Amino acid sequence: MNAYEYARAHEAEFLGQLQELLRIPSVSTSSEHAGDVRRAAEWLRAHLQQIGLRNVELIETPKHHPLVYGEWLEAGPDAPTVLLYGHYDVQPADKDGGEWTKCADPFEPTIADGNIYARGATDDKGQTFAQLKALESALATGSLPVNVKVLLEGEEESGSEAIEQYVRAHPERLACDVVVVSDSHILSLEQPSILSGLRGIVALEVTVSGPKSDLHSGMYGGAVHNPAQALAEILAALHDDCGRVAVPGFYDNVRELSLEERAELAKVPYTAEQLAQETGVPAPWGEHGYSLHERTGIRPTLEINGLTAGWQGEGSKTIIPQKASAKITCRLVPDQDPERIGQLVAEHIAALTPPTVTSAVEVGHAGMWAEADPHSPYMEAAARAYAFGFGAEPVFTREGGSIPIVATFQSVLGAPVILMGFGLPDDNLHAPDEKLSLECFRRGIQTALKFYEELRALPR
Amino acid sequence: MNAYEYARAHEAEFLGQLQELLRIPSVSTSSEHAGDVRRAAEWLRAHLQQIGLRNVELIETPKHHPLVYGEWLEAGPDAPTVLLYGHYDVQPADKDGGEWTKCADPFEPTIADGNIYARGATDDKGQTFAQLKALESALATGSLPVNVKVLLEGEEESGSEAIEQYVRAHPERLACDVVVVSDSHILSLEQPSILSGLRGIVALEVTVSGPKSDLHSGMYGGAVHNPAQALAEILAALHDDCGRVAVPGFYDNVRELSLEERAELAKVPYTAEQLAQETGVPAPWGEHGYSLHERTGIRPTLEINGLTAGWQGEGSKTIIPQKASAKITCRLVPDQDPERIGQLVAEHIAALTPPTVTSAVEVGHAGMWAEADPHSPYMEAAARAYAFGFGAEPVFTREGGSIPIVATFQSVLGAPVILMGFGLPDDNLHAPDEKLSLECFRRGIQTALKFYEELRALPR
Repeated sequence: MNAYEYARAHEAEFLGQLQELLRIPSVSTSSEHAGDVRRAAEWLRAHLQQIGLRNVELIETPKHHPLVYGEWLEAGPDAPTVLLYGHYDVQPADKDGGEWTKCADPFEPTIADGNIYARGATDDKGQTFAQLKALESALATGSLPVNVKVLLEGEEESGSEAIEQYVRAHPERLACDVVVVSDSHILSLEQPSILSGLRGIVALEVTVSGPKSDLHSGMYGGAVHNPAQALAEILAALHDDCGRVAVPGFYDNVRELSLEERAELAKVPYTAEQLAQETGVPAPWGEHGYSLHERTGIRPTLEINGLTAGWQGEGSKTIIPQKASAKITCRLVPDQDPERIGQLVAEHIAALTPPTVTSAVEVGHAGMWAEADPHSPYMEAAARAYAFGFGAEPVFTREGGSIPIVATFQSVLGAPVILMGFGLPDDNLHAPDEKLSLECFRRGIQTALKFYEELRALPR
Repeated sequence: MNAYEYARAHEAEFLGQLQELLRIPSVSTSSEHAGDVRRAAEWLRAHLQQIGLRNVELIETPKHHPLVYGEWLEAGPDAPTVLLYGHYDVQPADKDGGEWTKCADPFEPTIADGNIYARGATDDKGQTFAQLKALESALATGSLPVNVKVLLEGEEESGSEAIEQYVRAHPERLACDVVVVSDSHILSLEQPSILSGLRGIVALEVTVSGPKSDLHSGMYGGAVHNPAQALAEILAALHDDCGRVAVPGFYDNVRELSLEERAELAKVPYTAEQLAQETGVPAPWGEHGYSLHERTGIRPTLEINGLTAGWQGEGSKTIIPQKASAKITCRLVPDQDPERIGQLVAEHIAALTPPTVTSAVEVGHAGMWAEADPHSPYMEAAARAYAFGFGAEPVFTREGGSIPIVATFQSVLGAPVILMGFGLPDDNLHAPDEKLSLECFRRGIQTALKFYEELRALPR
């Protein structure tokens, strides 16, 4: 039995194991789940040992969730070394802005309609698990042709600080020829795709305060500036009428894509109809002069992720709220600097704040954008692997999501990163009914196995 | 012992009883407190019986909180009849936009600094209780010179629907010469005041929806209109740069006050410093061309009472929220029609909604503004009562709060309403550390007793 056959023969077992991992609510953004995050790390440590990796350990990082490491370096010095990255933490599953309909509990996975539904199914436990199962299949059949290092983190959804520090401190241990990350999506089962770009990110929280406590809106309404109104006025002023971010300097370092790059993106058009079907929005929106794919792939954005002010319960409460706040994230593109953008947005909010209220901006986690050259030998090897695994030539696309550590791998390890996504656009990540297609899981394992062979065949 | 002496002698007992009533969390805006609201009504029924009223009953109203009624009509046909109104429901005490510092629990009253602190201390259990204790003092000493009907409602904070229907259906039972309402505040202990106007109200809730569920802000950010942003844009457009409500037709029926009326309001100036001291706001705000007192008393407003969208927990969640909503109330003045204004605001929000999102506006409870003639014999009798109770001539002011039933009393019963407030401006109603000054409670009882005598002395 070869590795491809092994994978097919063990699929039911693989899915049973994945469900175990999905049952652990490893929400890294909430301190109450810290124990669950550790439980997921322990589970993965045991699992890496079980599939045959060596030197498996939890790497403890002060004040952060642990990294999970394991390696298999017995392919010999002539073989290339792959660093496999994934994250075992997930987004919160309460307040998803809708109801989960496919499973009673987002942490109780359900298999239905050819998908596995659970928080983390695609982002990123399921995709990472496909990589681990490819590794297992190759190791179990004695056919792994490359050296492999596995590094899994537990705070991708909350800033990736620990892994950032670790990679910078231990480049020799992580030395490799190529980094593989499965934490993104392809266009469809029929049209696989490989990412040539990822956006960066910076998070902010703005709080507008007025009176020292909530006020009776009858007694004071009309004489004090309502903080919720002032916040709305500030937030409304952060975009202009053309869908552009109206923060001075925001676009200063945005690199315009070449016509060739724009043509590559336009190869597989993304239409308003597709957007409407995937999301349910009545009409698209965004920056004038750019296609939908460009708006999400190569243009920066500023998004409100949450609003909080005053009375949110049943009925009404006739108050002027003491304060109002908004959570904001900006998605960033080459050559924007995340810290600089955070500062510009904070400064602009301060400038927009009228003397009738006060405002405070807290700049949170930041992550760098990343790019990959579609013409590198590694990308071409990945393209051949997709053609084998999915039965169709992949195209190169740009994605709007952010995986902060990717840029660090590139700069610190000097290795190209292959964004080998196995998700689909309608996987509902960060949303109710998050899923992973079982066919993607299956084909992903085959693609990953083929990639090892293609890597080994590259001239060194 | 006369009634005045009786009241002074029994103050400690009165306060003990008031604390019992304040301990009942009769929050009418929240269905989970329906049992508590009924408990407060039962408590008051028993209490009205205990102080000597006749025909005491709970008036049940389908789907609504009960009214509490009692009467004493033994002053004879030559004596005037007073209808005493109050409300025994309170605002919610959680999410007050600040911490209660004076009592561990807003429903566990604390007496400190010459005040009684609790939710409902001033609005309206404490003020109504001062009226009931005046009644008790007169009845216990055989000196009540007027006929009295007491009608207490349990949903003033949630729309006053039941009492509205009841008053319209039973004008003969409630027939009276004058209505007394103690649910407002005076300027200060040294400068008593009587309200000659109350604003009306209409409540709305707007919800802006975009995608069918929360979306990953990286995958879709830039291509869909973020509902939180769209809501902010709509809300920001509801006021112009001069602090005016920018809803077409909003001011169409607003009656401009005469110079004489404005001069009366200007008698006791209300300064930016006072506003800052009471509320803690850095600077006043509001409609250009009007004084602070005018802005809260005679001008209509539109206030955001609450905002809700997306992720409100710890840390960040990189989503485009499925929807965003705002709770709004408008305070209304003569001759605005609350229903019409609700409709105008809803229509304007619909007109402001771009095709990239959808919006829905639910128009909630509405209440009419009210006015009283400062030169009527009843108002002059009330002014003499205040001069006696507080030791200073009262001035006439306009208040921004709303007591929807006042306008109904005037129109249905054809009786003038005396807004005999015993609160102070810093009583923190609808806010943490709500209180009632014990000196106000004391002087309020004396004022109410004197008012009965002044009423009796009026020519009939």
